[in-house]
Amino acid sequence: MSLTIVGTVAFDELITPFGQSGKIIGGSATYASLSASNLFSDISIVSIIGADFPEKKLEYMRSKGINTDGIKRVEDGKTFFWKGEYHNDMNSRDTLITELNVLESFDPELPEKARESEYLMLGNLTPAVQMKVLRQMKKRPKLVIMDTMNFWMDIAMPELKEVLKEVDLLTINDEEARQLSGEYSLVKAAKKIFEMGPKYLVIKKGEHGALLFHGSKLFYAPALPLEEVFDPTGAGDTFAGGFIGHICASDEISFDSMKRAIIYGSALASFCVEKFGTTKLLEIDRAELHKRVMRFIELTQFDMKLN
Amino acid sequence: MSLTIVGTVAFDELITPFGQSGKIIGGSATYASLSASNLFSDISIVSIIGADFPEKKLEYMRSKGINTDGIKRVEDGKTFFWKGEYHNDMNSRDTLITELNVLESFDPELPEKARESEYLMLGNLTPAVQMKVLRQMKKRPKLVIMDTMNFWMDIAMPELKEVLKEVDLLTINDEEARQLSGEYSLVKAAKKIFEMGPKYLVIKKGEHGALLFHGSKLFYAPALPLEEVFDPTGAGDTFAGGFIGHICASDEISFDSMKRAIIYGSALASFCVEKFGTTKLLEIDRAELHKRVMRFIELTQFDMKLN
Repeated sequence: MSLTIVGTVAFDELITPFGQSGKIIGGSATYASLSASNLFSDISIVSIIGADFPEKKLEYMRSKGINTDGIKRVEDGKTFFWKGEYHNDMNSRDTLITELNVLESFDPELPEKARESEYLMLGNLTPAVQMKVLRQMKKRPKLVIMDTMNFWMDIAMPELKEVLKEVDLLTINDEEARQLSGEYSLVKAAKKIFEMGPKYLVIKKGEHGALLFHGSKLFYAPALPLEEVFDPTGAGDTFAGGFIGHICASDEISFDSMKRAIIYGSALASFCVEKFGTTKLLEIDRAELHKRVMRFIELTQFDMKLN
Repeated sequence: MSLTIVGTVAFDELITPFGQSGKIIGGSATYASLSASNLFSDISIVSIIGADFPEKKLEYMRSKGINTDGIKRVEDGKTFFWKGEYHNDMNSRDTLITELNVLESFDPELPEKARESEYLMLGNLTPAVQMKVLRQMKKRPKLVIMDTMNFWMDIAMPELKEVLKEVDLLTINDEEARQLSGEYSLVKAAKKIFEMGPKYLVIKKGEHGALLFHGSKLFYAPALPLEEVFDPTGAGDTFAGGFIGHICASDEISFDSMKRAIIYGSALASFCVEKFGTTKLLEIDRAELHKRVMRFIELTQFDMKLN
């Protein structure tokens, strides 16, 4: 099995009540692939960077089993950069700087290997770029999962809907699900979104957890309540990466497998927020991950005696 | 086993996007006792009403096994009245009218039977009234559960803290937990609240479910995602009533029993919001309740294969 992840590889700079990160690496494909690499090893990234992105960071990704041949380096360009500041509650933030740089002219060309993956994750990018990637796949992947955001719903809804027709699983947050469907009830929203293409829907609710919809089936996993959230950047991409990482590792596309995938994604996201950027994602070993998964079992499982 | 519930018995008038209720019965003790009566039958209410409260509504409560001897009728007074209007999202509302009426001079005097209960639920009332009830109990109940709200934190924090010292389980919402503890993290908030007296804490998060804390133990149950919320009035009291109803029925005070109690409370709350006021709470039969509990099992339980 192999997995292709398309998304951003970027620089972030974060200001939180706990301190400043300085310029560190970030981006949806970075978080998702590092997260997935904790569960699965045949991952190809497709992205774009500038001359300023350090080669040793790419080497580090490769040491985690991530193929970086699909990361195009623009020698006279600069890497996508985002700077943000979190408020005291860590649940809201202000964007201070967004510099698209090389991302502005991202025209993905997939290496041979990336075209052959059985699993495809379309990170949050313009729908046109997501469609270009889909068109380059040698055969229809077993599972296409896609992330998007309200911004594309505002400015590119028709293109977004074209991509959605080809997607198996959509992962968005609750507000985005409401905007995309025009329904406030998430149950109704899921029904409308299924009519647009996806057969599975994962609604991310941040500190309130995640919901999985499939037909009339429904699964809800909470986020782990934490004493301290140090830096929530990338938690959503880490969740998605852990989700698809588990699906690839088990090579099982079923509702039960996706339940477990949600737990793995939630567990990895709970690690992600413990330190700045991707730091924590690189430190987790299998024993620590299993221990965290056990905490989700304790958090959610109960023994009902029906009489 | 027997249960005493102290709280309001009131008139409500609700305006929702689905219509207007007209004047219907409501109040925290009404919702909690009708909810609990689905699980347990030896319940005494302590409350106060005016001349305008229909005797046949009390008879109806009695037909559900609820002892109403502790509901004092003030012949020259009017019953507590609340009128509110829900916004389109059903998650926020405006209070249009609050008439305390007889509640203003509520000086509870418990009938002999109510003083002897093993379980006591102090609904959301002034801390002074809650304390008066506690003082009238013949012996320390096996479990005292208490509800309160931000209003009492604003105007009567010292009295509230006195009551808290005698309470086993506190049930409040997330914002109230933050206000009471001065901590944003609910994990930290729980630790501080445990220092105030309670050994158990249930944090109600509305559509996001409920959290149970005890020592370092943690349990999270979601609310059932619903296609339509018709009227959310009383859902929190219904949840609390279902919770204590299950504890009384099982007569087991343990973390595992409380997990199940949270599921029963959540199931009953999911019924409550389907119709105006208490209507739906009076229609549930055991088969329907078990079916709803099964939906919570499907919603939350998973089979993790750890390797």
